[in-house]
Amino acid sequence: MPRKPTYDREDLIKRARDLFWRRGWAGTSLKDLEAALQMKPGSFYAAFGSKDALFELAMDRYAQDGAERLRVLAQEHGPLQALQQFPDVAIANKDAPAKACMLSKTLLELQAHNHPLASKANQHLLRMEQYFAELFQQAQAVGDIDSRHDPKVLARRYQSDLLGLRVSAEREGIDAKAIAEEISDSLTRL
Amino acid sequence: MPRKPTYDREDLIKRARDLFWRRGWAGTSLKDLEAALQMKPGSFYAAFGSKDALFELAMDRYAQDGAERLRVLAQEHGPLQALQQFPDVAIANKDAPAKACMLSKTLLELQAHNHPLASKANQHLLRMEQYFAELFQQAQAVGDIDSRHDPKVLARRYQSDLLGLRVSAEREGIDAKAIAEEISDSLTRL
Repeated sequence: MPRKPTYDREDLIKRARDLFWRRGWAGTSLKDLEAALQMKPGSFYAAFGSKDALFELAMDRYAQDGAERLRVLAQEHGPLQALQQFPDVAIANKDAPAKACMLSKTLLELQAHNHPLASKANQHLLRMEQYFAELFQQAQAVGDIDSRHDPKVLARRYQSDLLGLRVSAEREGIDAKAIAEEISDSLTRL
Repeated sequence: MPRKPTYDREDLIKRARDLFWRRGWAGTSLKDLEAALQMKPGSFYAAFGSKDALFELAMDRYAQDGAERLRVLAQEHGPLQALQQFPDVAIANKDAPAKACMLSKTLLELQAHNHPLASKANQHLLRMEQYFAELFQQAQAVGDIDSRHDPKVLARRYQSDLLGLRVSAEREGIDAKAIAEEISDSLTRL
Protein backbone atom coordinates (compact mmCIF):
# COMPACT_ATOMS: atom_id res chain seq x y z
CA MET A 1 0.00 0.00 0.00
CA PRO A 2 1.49 3.42 -0.95
CA ARG A 3 2.21 5.69 1.98
CA LYS A 4 -0.26 8.52 2.31
CA PRO A 5 1.43 11.91 1.76
CA THR A 6 1.81 13.87 4.96
CA TYR A 7 0.64 17.11 3.37
CA ASP A 8 -2.85 18.39 2.61
CA ARG A 9 -2.86 18.77 -1.15
CA GLU A 10 -5.79 21.20 -1.25
CA ASP A 11 -4.13 23.42 1.32
CA LEU A 12 -0.89 23.47 -0.70
CA ILE A 13 -2.78 24.42 -3.86
CA LYS A 14 -4.47 27.27 -2.01
CA ARG A 15 -1.14 28.54 -0.70
CA ALA A 16 0.29 28.38 -4.23
CA ARG A 17 -2.80 30.17 -5.56
CA ASP A 18 -2.32 33.04 -3.12
CA LEU A 19 1.31 33.41 -4.08
CA PHE A 20 0.69 33.25 -7.84
CA TRP A 21 -2.33 35.55 -7.56
CA ARG A 22 -0.36 38.21 -5.71
CA ARG A 23 3.03 37.99 -7.38
CA GLY A 24 2.16 36.71 -10.85
CA TRP A 25 3.72 33.93 -12.85
CA ALA A 26 7.19 35.41 -13.48
CA GLY A 27 7.22 37.01 -10.03
CA THR A 28 6.92 33.61 -8.33
CA SER A 29 10.03 31.47 -8.44
CA LEU A 30 10.28 27.78 -7.66
CA LYS A 31 12.22 28.81 -4.59
CA ASP A 32 9.32 31.06 -3.46
CA LEU A 33 6.92 28.15 -3.95
CA GLU A 34 9.07 25.67 -2.09
CA ALA A 35 9.36 28.14 0.80
CA ALA A 36 5.61 28.92 0.91
CA LEU A 37 4.66 25.26 0.63
CA GLN A 38 7.49 24.15 2.90
CA MET A 39 8.43 21.46 0.40
CA LYS A 40 11.78 20.24 -0.83
CA PRO A 41 12.28 20.28 -4.63
CA GLY A 42 11.93 16.49 -4.82
CA SER A 43 8.56 16.38 -3.03
CA PHE A 44 7.40 19.41 -5.00
CA TYR A 45 8.03 17.70 -8.32
CA ALA A 46 6.56 14.42 -7.09
CA ALA A 47 3.39 16.22 -5.96
CA PHE A 48 2.85 18.75 -8.75
CA GLY A 49 5.25 18.05 -11.61
CA SER A 50 6.09 21.65 -12.47
CA LYS A 51 5.42 25.29 -11.63
CA ASP A 52 3.08 25.55 -14.63
CA ALA A 53 1.10 22.47 -13.65
CA LEU A 54 0.65 23.90 -10.15
CA PHE A 55 -0.28 27.30 -11.57
CA GLU A 56 -3.03 25.61 -13.57
CA LEU A 57 -4.37 23.84 -10.47
CA ALA A 58 -4.21 27.13 -8.55
CA MET A 59 -6.15 28.91 -11.29
CA ASP A 60 -8.77 26.11 -11.35
CA ARG A 61 -9.17 26.51 -7.58
CA TYR A 62 -9.47 30.30 -7.96
CA ALA A 63 -12.12 30.03 -10.69
CA GLN A 64 -14.12 27.39 -8.80
CA ASP A 65 -14.15 29.55 -5.67
CA GLY A 66 -15.37 32.58 -7.61
CA ALA A 67 -18.18 30.64 -9.27
CA GLU A 68 -19.13 29.08 -5.93
CA ARG A 69 -19.28 32.51 -4.26
CA LEU A 70 -21.66 33.69 -6.97
CA ARG A 71 -23.74 30.51 -6.74
CA VAL A 72 -24.23 30.98 -2.99
CA LEU A 73 -25.22 34.65 -3.50
CA ALA A 74 -27.74 33.63 -6.18
CA GLN A 75 -29.21 30.92 -3.96
CA GLU A 76 -29.58 33.27 -1.00
CA HIS A 77 -30.64 36.47 -2.75
CA GLY A 78 -31.83 35.57 -6.25
CA PRO A 79 -30.13 36.35 -9.59
CA LEU A 80 -30.38 40.16 -9.73
CA GLN A 81 -29.22 40.76 -6.18
CA ALA A 82 -26.42 38.27 -6.64
CA LEU A 83 -25.18 40.20 -9.67
CA GLN A 84 -25.55 43.45 -7.73
CA GLN A 85 -23.64 42.23 -4.70
CA PHE A 86 -20.89 40.39 -6.54
CA PRO A 87 -18.76 43.46 -7.47
CA ASP A 88 -18.48 44.51 -3.85
CA VAL A 89 -17.88 40.92 -2.71
CA ALA A 90 -15.08 40.62 -5.28
CA ILE A 91 -13.13 43.55 -3.88
CA ALA A 92 -14.15 43.43 -0.20
CA ASN A 93 -12.44 40.14 0.67
CA LYS A 94 -9.84 41.15 3.24
CA ASP A 95 -8.06 37.79 3.02
CA ALA A 96 -7.53 38.00 -0.74
CA PRO A 97 -3.85 38.39 -1.61
CA ALA A 98 -4.72 40.90 -4.37
CA LYS A 99 -7.74 42.93 -5.43
CA ALA A 100 -7.30 42.39 -9.15
CA CYS A 101 -8.68 39.21 -10.69
CA MET A 102 -6.10 36.41 -10.89
CA LEU A 103 -7.43 35.41 -14.32
CA SER A 104 -6.97 38.87 -15.85
CA LYS A 105 -3.56 39.26 -14.19
CA THR A 106 -2.52 35.97 -15.76
CA LEU A 107 -3.96 36.93 -19.11
CA LEU A 108 -2.21 40.31 -19.16
CA GLU A 109 1.09 38.86 -18.06
CA LEU A 110 1.23 35.84 -20.36
CA GLN A 111 -0.88 36.58 -23.44
CA ALA A 112 1.98 38.32 -25.25
CA HIS A 113 4.19 35.32 -24.61
CA ASN A 114 1.60 32.92 -26.12
CA HIS A 115 1.74 30.99 -22.88
CA PRO A 116 -0.89 28.21 -22.58
CA LEU A 117 -1.84 29.52 -19.12
CA ALA A 118 -3.13 32.72 -20.77
CA SER A 119 -5.65 30.85 -22.90
CA LYS A 120 -6.56 28.73 -19.89
CA ALA A 121 -7.29 31.98 -17.98
CA ASN A 122 -9.45 33.14 -20.86
CA GLN A 123 -11.41 29.87 -20.78
CA HIS A 124 -12.18 30.42 -17.09
CA LEU A 125 -13.26 33.99 -17.86
CA LEU A 126 -15.55 32.74 -20.62
CA ARG A 127 -17.19 30.24 -18.27
CA MET A 128 -17.74 32.99 -15.72
CA GLU A 129 -19.24 35.21 -18.40
CA GLN A 130 -21.65 32.40 -19.32
CA TYR A 131 -22.63 32.12 -15.68
CA PHE A 132 -23.30 35.87 -15.55
CA ALA A 133 -25.46 35.52 -18.70
CA GLU A 134 -27.48 32.74 -17.07
CA LEU A 135 -28.16 34.93 -14.04
CA PHE A 136 -29.17 37.88 -16.25
CA GLN A 137 -31.54 35.53 -18.06
CA GLN A 138 -33.00 34.28 -14.78
CA ALA A 139 -33.45 37.88 -13.61
CA GLN A 140 -35.32 38.57 -16.85
CA ALA A 141 -37.48 35.48 -16.36
CA VAL A 142 -38.72 36.77 -12.99
CA GLY A 143 -39.23 40.27 -14.43
CA ASP A 144 -36.37 41.99 -12.58
CA ILE A 145 -34.63 43.04 -15.81
CA ASP A 146 -36.22 44.15 -19.06
CA SER A 147 -36.31 41.13 -21.40
CA ARG A 148 -35.49 43.23 -24.47
CA HIS A 149 -31.81 43.12 -23.47
CA ASP A 150 -29.64 40.29 -24.76
CA PRO A 151 -28.35 38.55 -21.60
CA LYS A 152 -25.07 37.76 -23.36
CA VAL A 153 -24.51 41.44 -24.11
CA LEU A 154 -25.34 42.36 -20.52
CA ALA A 155 -22.94 39.70 -19.24
CA ARG A 156 -20.12 40.84 -21.51
CA ARG A 157 -20.33 44.45 -20.35
CA TYR A 158 -20.84 43.45 -16.73
CA GLN A 159 -17.72 41.28 -16.77
CA SER A 160 -15.68 43.97 -18.48
CA ASP A 161 -16.72 46.56 -15.90
CA LEU A 162 -15.96 44.07 -13.15
CA LEU A 163 -12.43 43.53 -14.50
CA GLY A 164 -11.97 47.29 -14.61
CA LEU A 165 -13.26 47.63 -11.06
CA ARG A 166 -10.75 45.08 -9.87
CA VAL A 167 -7.87 46.85 -11.60
CA SER A 168 -9.08 50.08 -10.00
CA ALA A 169 -9.29 48.39 -6.59
CA GLU A 170 -5.59 47.62 -6.86
CA ARG A 171 -4.81 51.34 -7.12
CA GLU A 172 -3.99 53.58 -4.21
CA GLY A 173 -6.26 56.59 -3.76
CA ILE A 174 -9.22 55.07 -5.64
CA ASP A 175 -12.56 54.52 -3.91
CA ALA A 176 -13.31 51.16 -5.53
CA LYS A 177 -16.26 50.51 -3.22
CA ALA A 178 -18.00 53.51 -4.79
CA ILE A 179 -17.36 52.13 -8.29
CA ALA A 180 -18.77 48.75 -7.20
CA GLU A 181 -21.91 50.53 -5.99
CA GLU A 182 -22.26 52.33 -9.30
CA ILE A 183 -22.00 49.06 -11.23
CA SER A 184 -24.60 47.60 -8.89
CA ASP A 185 -26.93 50.62 -9.29
CA SER A 186 -26.65 50.56 -13.06
CA LEU A 187 -28.21 47.06 -13.05
CA THR A 188 -31.40 48.38 -11.46
CA ARG A 189 -31.82 50.74 -14.40
CA LEU A 190 -31.84 47.94 -17.01
CA MET B 1 32.99 69.00 -27.84
CA PRO B 2 31.27 65.67 -26.96
CA ARG B 3 30.45 63.50 -29.93
CA LYS B 4 26.75 63.45 -30.78
CA PRO B 5 25.24 59.97 -30.23
CA THR B 6 24.53 58.19 -33.48
CA TYR B 7 21.14 56.95 -32.28
CA ASP B 8 17.77 58.69 -32.10
CA ARG B 9 16.97 58.66 -28.38
CA GLU B 10 13.20 59.16 -28.84
CA ASP B 11 13.03 56.29 -31.28
CA LEU B 12 14.87 54.01 -28.85
CA ILE B 13 12.50 54.94 -26.05
CA LYS B 14 9.52 54.13 -28.28
CA ARG B 15 11.00 50.76 -29.20
CA ALA B 16 11.58 50.01 -25.52
CA ARG B 17 8.03 51.14 -24.72
CA ASP B 18 6.58 48.70 -27.24
CA LEU B 19 8.60 45.85 -25.82
CA PHE B 20 7.77 46.64 -22.17
CA TRP B 21 4.12 47.28 -23.01
CA ARG B 22 3.75 43.92 -24.72
CA ARG B 23 5.92 41.68 -22.59
CA GLY B 24 5.80 43.39 -19.21
CA TRP B 25 8.61 44.25 -16.84
CA ALA B 26 9.73 40.74 -15.83
CA GLY B 27 9.08 39.44 -19.34
CA THR B 28 11.59 41.87 -20.86
CA SER B 29 15.22 41.05 -20.21
CA LEU B 30 18.20 43.31 -20.70
CA LYS B 31 19.15 41.00 -23.55
CA ASP B 32 15.73 41.54 -25.19
CA LEU B 33 16.20 45.30 -24.85
CA GLU B 34 19.72 45.29 -26.25
CA ALA B 35 18.48 43.24 -29.22
CA ALA B 36 15.43 45.44 -29.90
CA LEU B 37 17.45 48.64 -29.53
CA GLN B 38 20.46 47.18 -31.31
CA MET B 39 22.73 48.46 -28.55
CA LYS B 40 25.67 46.90 -26.80
CA PRO B 41 25.46 46.71 -22.97
CA GLY B 42 27.98 49.56 -22.59
CA SER B 43 26.05 51.99 -24.81
CA PHE B 44 22.78 50.91 -23.22
CA TYR B 45 24.00 51.80 -19.74
CA ALA B 46 25.60 55.03 -20.94
CA ALA B 47 22.34 56.07 -22.62
CA PHE B 48 19.73 54.94 -20.08
CA GLY B 49 21.44 53.82 -16.89
CA SER B 50 19.24 50.82 -16.14
CA LYS B 51 16.26 48.80 -17.28
CA ASP B 52 14.07 50.49 -14.65
CA ALA B 53 15.16 53.98 -15.71
CA LEU B 54 14.30 53.14 -19.32
CA PHE B 55 10.97 51.60 -18.25
CA GLU B 56 10.11 54.88 -16.54
CA LEU B 57 10.95 56.88 -19.68
CA ALA B 58 8.90 54.42 -21.76
CA MET B 59 5.92 54.81 -19.44
CA ASP B 60 6.22 58.62 -19.56
CA ARG B 61 6.19 58.41 -23.36
CA TYR B 62 3.15 56.10 -23.25
CA ALA B 63 1.21 58.37 -20.90
CA GLN B 64 2.07 61.52 -22.87
CA ASP B 65 0.91 59.90 -26.11
CA GLY B 66 -2.39 58.84 -24.53
CA ALA B 67 -3.07 62.33 -23.17
CA GLU B 68 -2.09 63.87 -26.50
CA ARG B 69 -4.48 61.56 -28.38
CA LEU B 70 -7.31 62.68 -26.11
CA ARG B 71 -6.32 66.35 -26.43
CA VAL B 72 -6.47 66.15 -30.22
CA LEU B 73 -9.89 64.43 -30.08
CA ALA B 74 -11.19 67.13 -27.74
CA GLN B 75 -9.88 69.91 -29.95
CA GLU B 76 -11.44 68.42 -33.08
CA HIS B 77 -14.74 67.13 -31.70
CA GLY B 78 -15.34 68.82 -28.35
CA PRO B 79 -15.26 67.26 -24.85
CA LEU B 80 -18.23 64.86 -24.97
CA GLN B 81 -17.42 63.39 -28.36
CA ALA B 82 -13.77 63.05 -27.38
CA LEU B 83 -14.80 61.02 -24.32
CA GLN B 84 -17.15 58.98 -26.48
CA GLN B 85 -14.57 58.21 -29.15
CA PHE B 86 -11.65 57.57 -26.83
CA PRO B 87 -12.61 53.97 -25.81
CA ASP B 88 -12.70 52.84 -29.42
CA VAL B 89 -9.51 54.75 -30.25
CA ALA B 90 -7.79 53.07 -27.29
CA ILE B 91 -8.44 49.55 -28.59
CA ALA B 92 -8.51 50.16 -32.37
CA ASN B 93 -4.85 51.09 -32.79
CA LYS B 94 -3.51 48.33 -35.04
CA ASP B 95 0.11 49.31 -34.38
CA ALA B 96 -0.21 49.01 -30.62
CA PRO B 97 1.85 46.11 -29.25
CA ALA B 98 -0.96 45.23 -26.81
CA LYS B 99 -4.61 46.12 -26.29
CA ALA B 100 -4.42 46.39 -22.53
CA CYS B 101 -3.22 49.65 -20.99
CA MET B 102 0.51 49.67 -20.28
CA LEU B 103 -0.11 51.53 -17.01
CA SER B 104 -2.54 48.93 -15.64
CA LYS B 105 -0.34 46.07 -16.84
CA THR B 106 2.56 47.63 -14.94
CA LEU B 107 0.44 48.24 -11.88
CA LEU B 108 -0.88 44.67 -11.80
CA GLU B 109 2.52 43.17 -12.34
CA LEU B 110 4.52 45.25 -9.88
CA GLN B 111 2.14 46.49 -7.17
CA ALA B 112 2.51 43.31 -5.07
CA HIS B 113 6.28 43.68 -5.24
CA ASN B 114 6.11 47.28 -3.93
CA HIS B 115 8.07 48.30 -7.00
CA PRO B 116 8.40 52.10 -7.50
CA LEU B 117 7.27 51.70 -11.13
CA ALA B 118 3.84 50.56 -9.87
CA SER B 119 3.25 53.81 -8.01
CA LYS B 120 4.61 55.73 -10.99
CA ALA B 121 2.00 53.95 -13.16
CA ASN B 122 -0.68 54.93 -10.68
CA GLN B 123 0.42 58.58 -10.82
CA HIS B 124 0.01 58.55 -14.60
CA LEU B 125 -3.44 56.97 -14.22
CA LEU B 126 -4.42 59.67 -11.71
CA ARG B 127 -3.36 62.42 -14.11
CA MET B 128 -5.38 60.80 -16.88
CA GLU B 129 -8.39 60.58 -14.56
CA GLN B 130 -8.06 64.30 -13.82
CA TYR B 131 -8.01 64.99 -17.53
CA PHE B 132 -11.19 62.93 -17.98
CA ALA B 133 -12.80 64.93 -15.15
CA GLU B 134 -11.87 68.21 -16.87
CA LEU B 135 -13.51 67.03 -20.09
CA PHE B 136 -16.66 65.91 -18.23
CA GLN B 137 -16.77 69.35 -16.62
CA GLN B 138 -16.35 71.08 -19.99
CA ALA B 139 -19.15 68.90 -21.42
CA GLN B 140 -21.33 70.00 -18.53
CA ALA B 141 -20.44 73.65 -19.11
CA VAL B 142 -21.75 73.48 -22.68
CA GLY B 143 -24.86 71.57 -21.55
CA ASP B 144 -23.95 68.20 -23.09
CA ILE B 145 -24.02 66.41 -19.72
CA ASP B 146 -26.34 67.04 -16.79
CA SER B 147 -24.51 69.27 -14.32
CA ARG B 148 -25.93 67.43 -11.30
CA HIS B 149 -23.27 64.76 -11.77
CA ASP B 150 -19.92 65.15 -10.04
CA PRO B 151 -17.34 65.19 -12.87
CA LYS B 152 -14.82 63.43 -10.63
CA VAL B 153 -17.25 60.57 -10.02
CA LEU B 154 -17.97 60.34 -13.74
CA ALA B 155 -14.26 60.29 -14.53
CA ARG B 156 -13.53 57.58 -11.96
CA ARG B 157 -16.18 55.23 -13.34
CA TYR B 158 -15.26 56.07 -16.94
CA GLN B 159 -11.61 55.24 -16.35
CA SER B 160 -12.45 52.03 -14.53
CA ASP B 161 -14.69 50.89 -17.39
CA LEU B 162 -11.97 51.84 -19.85
CA LEU B 163 -9.41 49.72 -18.00
CA GLY B 164 -11.89 46.82 -18.06
CA LEU B 165 -12.50 47.34 -21.76
CA ARG B 166 -8.80 47.14 -22.44
CA VAL B 167 -8.41 43.94 -20.45
CA SER B 168 -11.39 42.54 -22.39
CA ALA B 169 -9.80 43.64 -25.68
CA GLU B 170 -6.83 41.45 -24.87
CA ARG B 171 -9.07 38.38 -24.73
CA GLU B 172 -9.77 36.08 -27.62
CA GLY B 173 -13.42 35.70 -28.57
CA ILE B 174 -14.53 38.99 -27.02
CA ASP B 175 -16.10 41.73 -29.15
CA ALA B 176 -14.37 44.64 -27.44
CA LYS B 177 -15.54 47.10 -30.09
CA ALA B 178 -19.12 46.44 -28.98
CA ILE B 179 -18.16 47.13 -25.35
CA ALA B 180 -16.47 50.38 -26.42
CA GLU B 181 -19.69 51.42 -28.14
CA GLU B 182 -21.71 50.66 -25.04
CA ILE B 183 -19.40 52.79 -22.89
CA SER B 184 -19.73 55.54 -25.49
CA ASP B 185 -23.54 55.24 -25.59
CA SER B 186 -23.84 55.31 -21.82
CA LEU B 187 -22.31 58.81 -21.81
CA THR B 188 -25.19 60.16 -23.91
CA ARG B 189 -27.59 59.04 -21.19
CA LEU B 190 -25.90 61.10 -18.45
